[in-house]
Amino acid sequence: MTKVIKGIAASDGIAAAKAYMLVQPDLSFTEKTIDDVDAEVARLEAAVETSKQDLEVIKQKAAQNLGEEEAQVFEAHLTILSDPELFGQINEKIKNDKVNAESALKSVTDMFISMFESMTDNKYMQERAGDIRDVTKRVMSHLLGVKLPNPALINEEVVIVAHDLTPSDTAQLDRNFVKGFITDIGGRTSHSAIMSRTLEIPAVVGSGSATSDIQEGQMVIIDGLDGEALVEPTAEELADYEGRAKAFADQKAEWKLLKDAKSLTKDGKQVKLAANIGTPKDVEGANDNGAEAVGLFRSEFLYMDAAELPSEEDQFQAYKQALEGMDGKQVVVRTMDIGGDKELPYLPLPEEENPFLGYRAIRISLDRQDIFRTQLRALLRASEFGRLAIMFPMIATVQEFKDAKAIFEEEKAKLVAEGVAVSDDIEVGMMMEIPAATMIADKLAKYVDFFSIGTNDLIGYTMAADRGNERVSYLYQPYNPSILRMVKRTIDASHAEGKWTGMCGEMAGDQTAVPLLVGLGLDEFSMSATSVLKTRSLLKKLDSAKMEELANKALDCETSEEVVALVNEYTEQ
Amino acid sequence: MTKVIKGIAASDGIAAAKAYMLVQPDLSFTEKTIDDVDAEVARLEAAVETSKQDLEVIKQKAAQNLGEEEAQVFEAHLTILSDPELFGQINEKIKNDKVNAESALKSVTDMFISMFESMTDNKYMQERAGDIRDVTKRVMSHLLGVKLPNPALINEEVVIVAHDLTPSDTAQLDRNFVKGFITDIGGRTSHSAIMSRTLEIPAVVGSGSATSDIQEGQMVIIDGLDGEALVEPTAEELADYEGRAKAFADQKAEWKLLKDAKSLTKDGKQVKLAANIGTPKDVEGANDNGAEAVGLFRSEFLYMDAAELPSEEDQFQAYKQALEGMDGKQVVVRTMDIGGDKELPYLPLPEEENPFLGYRAIRISLDRQDIFRTQLRALLRASEFGRLAIMFPMIATVQEFKDAKAIFEEEKAKLVAEGVAVSDDIEVGMMMEIPAATMIADKLAKYVDFFSIGTNDLIGYTMAADRGNERVSYLYQPYNPSILRMVKRTIDASHAEGKWTGMCGEMAGDQTAVPLLVGLGLDEFSMSATSVLKTRSLLKKLDSAKMEELANKALDCETSEEVVALVNEYTEQ
Repeated sequence: MTKVIKGIAASDGIAAAKAYMLVQPDLSFTEKTIDDVDAEVARLEAAVETSKQDLEVIKQKAAQNLGEEEAQVFEAHLTILSDPELFGQINEKIKNDKVNAESALKSVTDMFISMFESMTDNKYMQERAGDIRDVTKRVMSHLLGVKLPNPALINEEVVIVAHDLTPSDTAQLDRNFVKGFITDIGGRTSHSAIMSRTLEIPAVVGSGSATSDIQEGQMVIIDGLDGEALVEPTAEELADYEGRAKAFADQKAEWKLLKDAKSLTKDGKQVKLAANIGTPKDVEGANDNGAEAVGLFRSEFLYMDAAELPSEEDQFQAYKQALEGMDGKQVVVRTMDIGGDKELPYLPLPEEENPFLGYRAIRISLDRQDIFRTQLRALLRASEFGRLAIMFPMIATVQEFKDAKAIFEEEKAKLVAEGVAVSDDIEVGMMMEIPAATMIADKLAKYVDFFSIGTNDLIGYTMAADRGNERVSYLYQPYNPSILRMVKRTIDASHAEGKWTGMCGEMAGDQTAVPLLVGLGLDEFSMSATSVLKTRSLLKKLDSAKMEELANKALDCETSEEVVALVNEYTEQ
Repeated sequence: MTKVIKGIAASDGIAAAKAYMLVQPDLSFTEKTIDDVDAEVARLEAAVETSKQDLEVIKQKAAQNLGEEEAQVFEAHLTILSDPELFGQINEKIKNDKVNAESALKSVTDMFISMFESMTDNKYMQERAGDIRDVTKRVMSHLLGVKLPNPALINEEVVIVAHDLTPSDTAQLDRNFVKGFITDIGGRTSHSAIMSRTLEIPAVVGSGSATSDIQEGQMVIIDGLDGEALVEPTAEELADYEGRAKAFADQKAEWKLLKDAKSLTKDGKQVKLAANIGTPKDVEGANDNGAEAVGLFRSEFLYMDAAELPSEEDQFQAYKQALEGMDGKQVVVRTMDIGGDKELPYLPLPEEENPFLGYRAIRISLDRQDIFRTQLRALLRASEFGRLAIMFPMIATVQEFKDAKAIFEEEKAKLVAEGVAVSDDIEVGMMMEIPAATMIADKLAKYVDFFSIGTNDLIGYTMAADRGNERVSYLYQPYNPSILRMVKRTIDASHAEGKWTGMCGEMAGDQTAVPLLVGLGLDEFSMSATSVLKTRSLLKKLDSAKMEELANKALDCETSEEVVALVNEYTEQ
């Protein structure tokens, strides 16, 4: 019978291909005494030769896909494989000690690695240690006859099966060959899930057991719509899934027609669909997918992708680029949101027992005003090049918002005094992501220009559950009436003061949540760019009065499950 | 000029005495070559002799204050000081290596310590390693001429000055001599602050700099009412403080008269004042201080004070003792609340990035039903011996409460079927300490018999600030309108269903919070036993209608500071 693996639907679409196990193989070995030393030396040489062939292919691929510079690292690996001193010593060891090639390889390379690593003031030599480590792994895999996975070597259509995908793994994926992926861990908001949506590759995450349930080369269907995978499907199942894949492709083509359409419900109520971006480059995807604004520019990426605090000028250029790219459409920049699980190598933060409840985001900005003021100046200077809005993350109290806003005003006044052109029309708002803030939303609404609900953190704090912690992730319930009531308080409070509320957490692009959010009166939905058109299409099917009725009933439910059942009832009709 | 040190008022009262620095001295030394070896050996012997004299006094004190058994450890230390093999080797080392006594002492004892410690399967020898370490410290201090602080040696009235006080420090404090204390770190809910209230010793915590601002022997006034300390006060200041101390003593005597009085506001509105306890022994203090109930029995202490999971019988005895001790007054037992910062050595919990947002309390109980059912059976069996109530900690959703209650009902039915007598009148409620639960308090109120607001965690989650984290402790704001609004929601929801709400966090005994809580309609205030009478006295001065007006105004404030100002305005009149 076909094996079905359940997981979390991370990225829409359906794909079928052979499994490619992106799993680190076991490279352990037993030290053996050998008799035929010449045969052992020959065995090593063969492994080195095959490794060279691998690296030639990888180098070529890297040059094509990533550029000549990135390919250089593999040239360095090839040089090591031809190093007479290194391999001379390994051969000597096999001959003198009569040990097997694995053992000789390991002990000699270990020695070189620790020698190079000990040169702590010589960065070049330390990097060589890393290169030797990589090369050793490759040669060892050939000696042991196990496969070293390498996404860059993939030259046929596959479905990737991995425990998790790191950012460097995903950077190497070739969309021409990688048709889908499935991982053991992660949730809808994990790095691999977000990447899968950006790359538009069907994906299932958090399956728990994909790497043990699937074997290299097995045919696998990835159903990124329902969050499951079928291993070794029958011909009938394949045909069925091909039909669904075709239907999904058709649907996507239809969605594309909505690129320049307004975001309207069936009865003509208009909302705004926006995109979340991390860098100015992402603006292209936002525009291609018909986003009407950038609802969240995660400015911390400017900090995380740098080797030191980005200068005012560097930030100015990035903000300017994003604003110009959006061509008059609003760009909401969130000020630096580090701390929690986001670290900066050059800005050491204190060790904390509970980093999510610690020194992060606006708390750092209000403390380290040097950093904060530089960012605000860069933003203010860029404001002339488009329609800028600024929001502060992790505001818990009225005082914090007032303090942050006052610093903004100070920097604005300084720039104006310096004769710098600054827009007079910058909206200044806040993230609504701390329970305390939702409780006093009416008070905060007097001071802000808008709220943007950050559901990822808000749900975590409200349920007292870290979504990254598998043991309690069941409590991370976006549809729980407690969360809906907080969303409602926030929206109502903003409207009472003539302000608007957006949402920039994962929930804003969630197809079960959208009907509820329409009913609750949300003004702006900001999501992965690739979800915008699908959501615009969904909106067209929803009647706003009926969704309001749905929302009111949902607010009165006891559990998350009841809410989901209600949404299904209201949207199936 | 008199130096004034500001801190946090941790325990009421005023005291003046000489400073006793409970600070670990610097025991570092330089290794030296010495010429006169005999003089060096004599120097060591003198240090050993003085150490013996210390230990004789400490042993005697310990026997008096703690019992013969506890005194045995010092007998063991004396035996080590007379060990010819150990000190023979040290003397040899001085003579042969011509090194100073400090160096010889260290190297020889280090050797013995690591030898004993390496015997990992011999607990006795491992404990000896600890003893040698203690003895070495003492001898070293005499060699270096620095003072090793020892609370047990205190034989005159002092004020303790420490960075922080550990549980073992506080266990040694003799209330006849220790008149007050001040620490560098900690807040109102730190261990040292809670202990100071239990021992009724005036205390100031979290001063930041007491150990560097105060020197041994300086006269210090500890003002535990205003949270400050005066160093080397003038005669005039001393007289003033003596007057205030006298007034406070008079006030305490007056409070004592309220022991058997009802807890009534000025206009005759009755509430219930209860005590928080950790073990059945604490029931005595609750009764002595006129508590009308135990509002929180922290059952996790039964687990934390044990070497393995406590048996059903052990727990039964503890609950029975508490219920009998309260003689018909209600005892609310909170089921096991471990995880977060509370660990059990015999029940390893997973390492978590954010333990406060992780696997803890009811989440563990619903997962490890073996442990949970044992506790419920013990409670049910004890229920015949008094007026028992049970509450579940960390309930976030309706489903969790229903699940926990269903398990309770199952165990009850089983016991009844087994013919065990079980009370039919056990109230089953929940802690209100997660923001989500306050948002759906109306739904939960249908299922519970009562709510008990746990402000320590509730404030932490609501403000997204770990109160133990100094960098964000300023956000731990009990009077923030956001918190007051959650309290209000909870109380109103319970009353609408004819249920009651208590509060068992630190806030319930806080004199600024009490007027607000009366105004919000709180039914039961559960606090440190020593705060009960003071609170009963405060209640007599409050008019409930006026407090309701105060509470309504406070709910409409923007900041914590505004709320405090309002309370002052309403209570000063």
